[in-house]
This record gives sequence, structure tokens and C-alpha cells, in this order.
Amino acid sequence: MITHFNPVDLIRKKRDGKKLDEKEIEYLIAEYTSGSIPDYQMAAFLMAVFFQGLDGEETIHLMRSMLHSGAVMDLSGINASKIDKHSTGGVGDKVSLVLAPLIACCGICVPMISGRGLGHTGGTLDKLESIPGFRTDLTAEKFRTQLKEIGVAMIGQTSEIAPADRKIYALRDVTATVDSIPLIAASIMSKKLAEDLDGLVLDVKFGSGAFMKDYSKAKSLAQTMVQTGRRAGVKTVAVMTSMGDPLGTYVGNSLEVIEAIECLKGNGPDDVIEVTLALAEQMLKIAGIRGGRGLLQKKISNGEALKKLWSVIENQGGDSRVIEDYARLPAGKTRVEVLASRSGYIRAIDTFAVGTLLIELGGGRKLKEARIDPSCGFAFHKKTGDYVKKGVCLAEIIGSNTTAMHAIALKLGRAFSVQSNPVRRKKLVREIVRS
Amino acid sequence: MITHFNPVDLIRKKRDGKKLDEKEIEYLIAEYTSGSIPDYQMAAFLMAVFFQGLDGEETIHLMRSMLHSGAVMDLSGINASKIDKHSTGGVGDKVSLVLAPLIACCGICVPMISGRGLGHTGGTLDKLESIPGFRTDLTAEKFRTQLKEIGVAMIGQTSEIAPADRKIYALRDVTATVDSIPLIAASIMSKKLAEDLDGLVLDVKFGSGAFMKDYSKAKSLAQTMVQTGRRAGVKTVAVMTSMGDPLGTYVGNSLEVIEAIECLKGNGPDDVIEVTLALAEQMLKIAGIRGGRGLLQKKISNGEALKKLWSVIENQGGDSRVIEDYARLPAGKTRVEVLASRSGYIRAIDTFAVGTLLIELGGGRKLKEARIDPSCGFAFHKKTGDYVKKGVCLAEIIGSNTTAMHAIALKLGRAFSVQSNPVRRKKLVREIVRS
Repeated sequence: MITHFNPVDLIRKKRDGKKLDEKEIEYLIAEYTSGSIPDYQMAAFLMAVFFQGLDGEETIHLMRSMLHSGAVMDLSGINASKIDKHSTGGVGDKVSLVLAPLIACCGICVPMISGRGLGHTGGTLDKLESIPGFRTDLTAEKFRTQLKEIGVAMIGQTSEIAPADRKIYALRDVTATVDSIPLIAASIMSKKLAEDLDGLVLDVKFGSGAFMKDYSKAKSLAQTMVQTGRRAGVKTVAVMTSMGDPLGTYVGNSLEVIEAIECLKGNGPDDVIEVTLALAEQMLKIAGIRGGRGLLQKKISNGEALKKLWSVIENQGGDSRVIEDYARLPAGKTRVEVLASRSGYIRAIDTFAVGTLLIELGGGRKLKEARIDPSCGFAFHKKTGDYVKKGVCLAEIIGSNTTAMHAIALKLGRAFSVQSNPVRRKKLVREIVRS
Repeated sequence: MITHFNPVDLIRKKRDGKKLDEKEIEYLIAEYTSGSIPDYQMAAFLMAVFFQGLDGEETIHLMRSMLHSGAVMDLSGINASKIDKHSTGGVGDKVSLVLAPLIACCGICVPMISGRGLGHTGGTLDKLESIPGFRTDLTAEKFRTQLKEIGVAMIGQTSEIAPADRKIYALRDVTATVDSIPLIAASIMSKKLAEDLDGLVLDVKFGSGAFMKDYSKAKSLAQTMVQTGRRAGVKTVAVMTSMGDPLGTYVGNSLEVIEAIECLKGNGPDDVIEVTLALAEQMLKIAGIRGGRGLLQKKISNGEALKKLWSVIENQGGDSRVIEDYARLPAGKTRVEVLASRSGYIRAIDTFAVGTLLIELGGGRKLKEARIDPSCGFAFHKKTGDYVKKGVCLAEIIGSNTTAMHAIALKLGRAFSVQSNPVRRKKLVREIVRS
């Protein structure tokens, strides 16, 4: 039974900095989802939340109301610890493709529900779908069966999960109320907790390519999400990782699939491996599985993790021969080089600009409905801290439309800033947030 | 030609405390009024304004955009100074009914457009309409003719005036964004400036019966309105008057008409006369008419002002015999007394409660569409500062439903607070705000 309130009173209460209780928040979310509370009242409420915030209890009430607006999975038939990883979004972030099969080899069940590219960041679903035939729209039954059989499945969000969040997110997008830590935290956690998890590891990004560029804001988001997860009974940990540079050498959908496979073959770039292992280690800890990095490295070197990816692709209808034959993936036909315009040390790469340029190249989407070109992207041969001589190749544009690529090469060049003095590289994995 | 903007960018700009320029505000208001910008974006914008405010320039752009969303009167054919009075709303405030005919006798043209009761406050239109036959819906042509002939006309807002304000006000009402000084100021001034005025005197109320109870907030509203009026080229002055007690003896529509007529007959209660003269004096000053209070008092004592009210009633279809025969006005059949429950000095009257109790009695409206009973109301025989003996009559409830009246009498008794120590009466007219 839902208690009835006057929505104006609830908006005013939040506007005046007062705390809403569980019943009030439940009422707002349930009535908005059913259409009884109109968009304009929810918009005013969201803007009031933007200014006044939500405390820990309000955030969990909001999260739970959104979670219970839709279906929650029942994975009780699976005995293994069910642990997922979620990233707040980055550029070149192919970690899920490496981490999910790797951790599944360690006896953890990974019921991974991913998203598409959003804004300047890439999405795991888009990357997976560059594998010919790969299906991300498994039925709930098929998803459960695959989890039981191989311990990992990677799908997209279904319309049954957290419809309240979907409706509210769409409204936030058009009312300038996206950048609110409690709203972001409740949104992410309402979708993740629909996976019936025992544990969750959050990869919270900061730096130029992250949504929350500022470290202290990103950490505050991490804390809010960790507390919300823990209050909901899910062991939650956040790993703060830098998105100051693109992650790995490649940015672009099929290029990142190749790089992820290379990681599982033991040839991955240091940064992708470091972030993957840091997250995987936390997942092992949550599951109470011993072995740490040694176990993880063994699962890569003995080929088990690669085999697991093969099984995922096979089970989800994809062409598993891509693992040995990259030519079966969509590929850009030509390359255009970006050369250093002066000698010096790379001070920074504007990674937000990199993500935006991928959209311009066709590898990301401006609008939700837009189709993307999975074949194009960038290769980064130099990163922050590297010394470069004038004229050396910093990066390459990979694609098919040479005219567009030349224009983008010019802009990508400007994303690099070079200085005469040496640059101290910052730690990639900055901190673990546990409460 | 209107420049195009993305509404989300404008909401975000205000949300982040940045200043919007003229074109941006014009765009928001024009596109919202036409329906191109949806309610939810305007609601988010209004809540952002609630928190971030608008500066003087933004307020005048908003006011002008709302003003020009509809018709602006053309009173250029009238030579006299056109000056109106506007009150921010009170309880027992029948000043317009006294002031408009009085000031019209001094050679000032008063094109008065009034509102209905709103919330706990009464409205001039409702009071006028308790006079049998009185029409407040004159055509623009008839309005102009009457102004030329007798110098004063009192009508209601037409749908042609400031439609943007009407649409925005309705949205503010349901999104808890009413209490914002720049939004209130722009709303009031956009309607008043549609009257093609040379001058405007604002009666800005404070105290328990006012919308802005707090003096400093009320003064800030006064300053914002005065500045907005002056920037728009209208000589604007605000008079800060207390709404700590109900104004006059009577509260209730036909009762207030009688009290207003008594004022014009020279028998008005001191407080109503004091507020009326203070406002009228400012109107004379703006018009450059000499004589001050002496002139005003003469126009009452020689009967000219009463004669002018008679002309207004005659011209607007009302039964002017009410002036001599109050029995022609709707009248409550019975009276119920409110007696003092202890001896002492009246410390305060909760005038907000008085306004709310009038609604409960049937003399005001809960909903915009509701009909009111013009015959009922209250008579206040004691006011703040008076010494009362236990059992003496503080006030009377006047109406026809005795059962309801007894219940209300109990509540009205509680609106009086009595203390043993003497109470110092505060000044009714506190300050004149000129900039």
C-alpha cells in the first residue's frame, strides 16, 4: 500500500533542504513511473536534488525504488559468488572484455549487463557487437543457463530492468540534472543490483576522459555508490583509476576487441592489464578466493581465460574464429598519422577530445539511435610522460574516409600538449574505496 | 528574429550561476509560451532560478519577455498621468476600493487591473463583484472610454495580457517555484506594465498575513520591483505596510465593500485610511500634483471621492444604490462572537490563519474555479496592542451556517495571542522604497 502525498509538498521539502523519508521517495518514483506525477514535477524535484543533494538514506531509498520499479533477476540457483564490475565510463576502456572471462575462470559467476557508448565514452555492448554474429539480447532463461554452464554472460539492459531509472535518466538528460552524485549513484546501483549480486567492484574514473574529471568529485561518487551497495547488502568496493590518457593503445570498437584478445594472450599493454588486475583482485577478495594476482596471471598464461572468451563468443552466437583471425573483424582500410609538431615531453592528452573525435569519425554516437562504424578508431603510440621528437608518429587514425581522417588527425594532434620539461607520470590506480 | 538556443544549455547556465542575456531569456519565454519548450524544461529552469536568482538585468529581460508575450494597452489618447497601485496581497485589504476613486478625483487616471483572491489573501475583483450587477470584464474599448470619461476603471486581467506569465505562474504553482523574488517581481510587473502606465505605487506587505512574512525579504521584493519598473521607464515606488493584523475591522467580500464606502464617507478605520493616504500621497508625488494629504482629505470630506465610486459602479453595471443602502449587498444572517479566554494585552493576531479561516467559512477559494460566498466574513473589534478583559468580544463571525461558524469561532479565538505585559504597537507604514 502506497501512502499518498502532494508532489508539490515533496518538491518544496527537498527544495528547502529537508530530508525525505522512505515512503515519500517511494511515492515519487512509483507515481512518476506510472505517469501519475508529470515530467514537470519530477524535473523540478531533480533540480532541487541537484542543489540540495540526498543523504545516504535518501539515496538508498531512491535506488531501491528504482530497482523495484522493474524485474530483479533470480540467480539463486547458482552457487558461485555472483560478482560484477561496473565502470563509470572511459575512452579505450575494454577492461570488461578481458576481466569477465578472466574472473569467470577463477570460479566467480559474472552476470554482466553492460551499456552502449554514452557521450564521449565507449560501451562494452558496442565493442562486443563488432564481433560478427554476437548477440547481446539473450533471454533471461538463456542468460541463467549460460551463467550456470560457463560462469559468465555479457548482455545489454532489458526494458524490464529499472524502468523508473530509464524514464528519469531520459528526463535528466534534457533538464541539465545529470551531474548530481546521488542521482548518478542511485541510477547505476539500481541497474547493477537488479543482477542479484553478492558483490560489485566499481571502476570509478577520473581525469580528462572521465565524466567526473575532478578527483574529489569522482571519489565522492565512489563513496556514495559503495555505501549504497553496502546498505543494500552487496559487498561493494570502488577502484579509482585514471582516465587522464586513453586506456591501452587502441580506441574504437573492433580495435578494442583485438586489444582485449591480445591481453588474454598475454600481450596486453601495461595500463589495461594493470586496471584489469586491480579490479579482478578486488573481485577475488570479495569472493574469498585466494591466489591474488598470481592466480590471475596463471589463468592468462595457461590460456584458460582466452578459452573462456571463446566460450562466451560461441555461446552468444558470435564468430569465435576472430580470436585467431582478426581479419574477420570489421577493419578500417587506411591509416593517417598524427605527427608531433615539436619535440618535448607529452604533458597531457585531452582524452575527452579523443572520445569526441571518435564520434566524429563515426565510431561513437551523437544520438541514442545512431548506428556506429565499428571498424574505425585510433592507435596511440605515445602517452603522457613520453619524450617525443618533432615529426615522430604520436597516433594514427584508422578508418576508410581519408578526407575526414585528415581533418580529424589535425584535431587529434591538438589533443596532445607537449612541454620542454620532463613530466612525472601519475599512478593509474590511485586508491581503493571501501566505505 | 529570434536566435535559437538549446534549452538544456540555458538551464545548465542558470544552474551553474551564470548570467543569461536578453536573447537567451527571450528565447526561453517565447518558445515556452508557443509550446516548443516543454513544461519539464521550464520547470527545471524555474527551480534553477529559485536557487541561483536573477540579477536586475535578467529580471527586466524576463519581465519584458512576459509583457510582450501578449497585448499591451494603448492609453496614449489620455493626457492625464496614468498611475496604478498594486498590493502584494493581504487580509482585509480593501484599499483599492477607496484609493482608486479618491485618486481619480485628483486628476490622475487609474487603469486598475486587479486579481481574485489567491491563497489566504482576498482579491479586489471578488470584492467588487459582491456589488449586484458589477461587471469586471469590460472590453478594451469600454475600459478606455470609461478612463477618459471618469478617470478610473477597475477590471480583471484579460487573457490577452501576459499569457507567458499566466502559463509560467500555473507551472510555478505545481512545482514549488512560487517563492522566488525575481520571479514574483517579473510576474507582477509584466502584468502591471501592460497597463501603459506612467507611474506605479506598490503596497508591499509584510507580517503574518503577507505572502512575504519576513520584512527583509519583503523589502528585497520591493526593491526588485521598483528597480524593474524604473528600468522599464515607469516611475515606481513601494510602500512597506504591515499585514501583522487584518486591515480594518472587516474581512470578507461584501463586508469590505461596506467598510470601503464608509472610508469614503469619512468614517473609515484609522489603519485603512492611513495605508490609503500613504499610497495616494506617493501617487500624487509621481504625478507632480501638489496638495498632499490635505487635498486627499478634502476630496473625502467634500464627497467627491464617494461620488467617483458611485460613477464607477454606475459605469460598470453595478447597483449604485448600495452606497446608501447596504442591505442591497449580500449579508450574513447571523453572528457568532469570539470571546477573550483570558485578560491581557493582545500580543499578535495570526493573520495568515484569519485568511485561511475565511476560506473555510466560504468567503475565499481553495481552488481557482471555486465559487465564493460574498456575504460572510469577520469583524475584528480588538487588535494587536489592545487590552482585553476575559470574556470581552474580540471578534465576530458573520455568516449563515451557524454550526460551521461556531467551529470557526473556536479557531479564530486561537489566532489571538494574549500576554500580561503591555504590547508596543508597531508602525503600520514602515518605509518608502524608491530604488
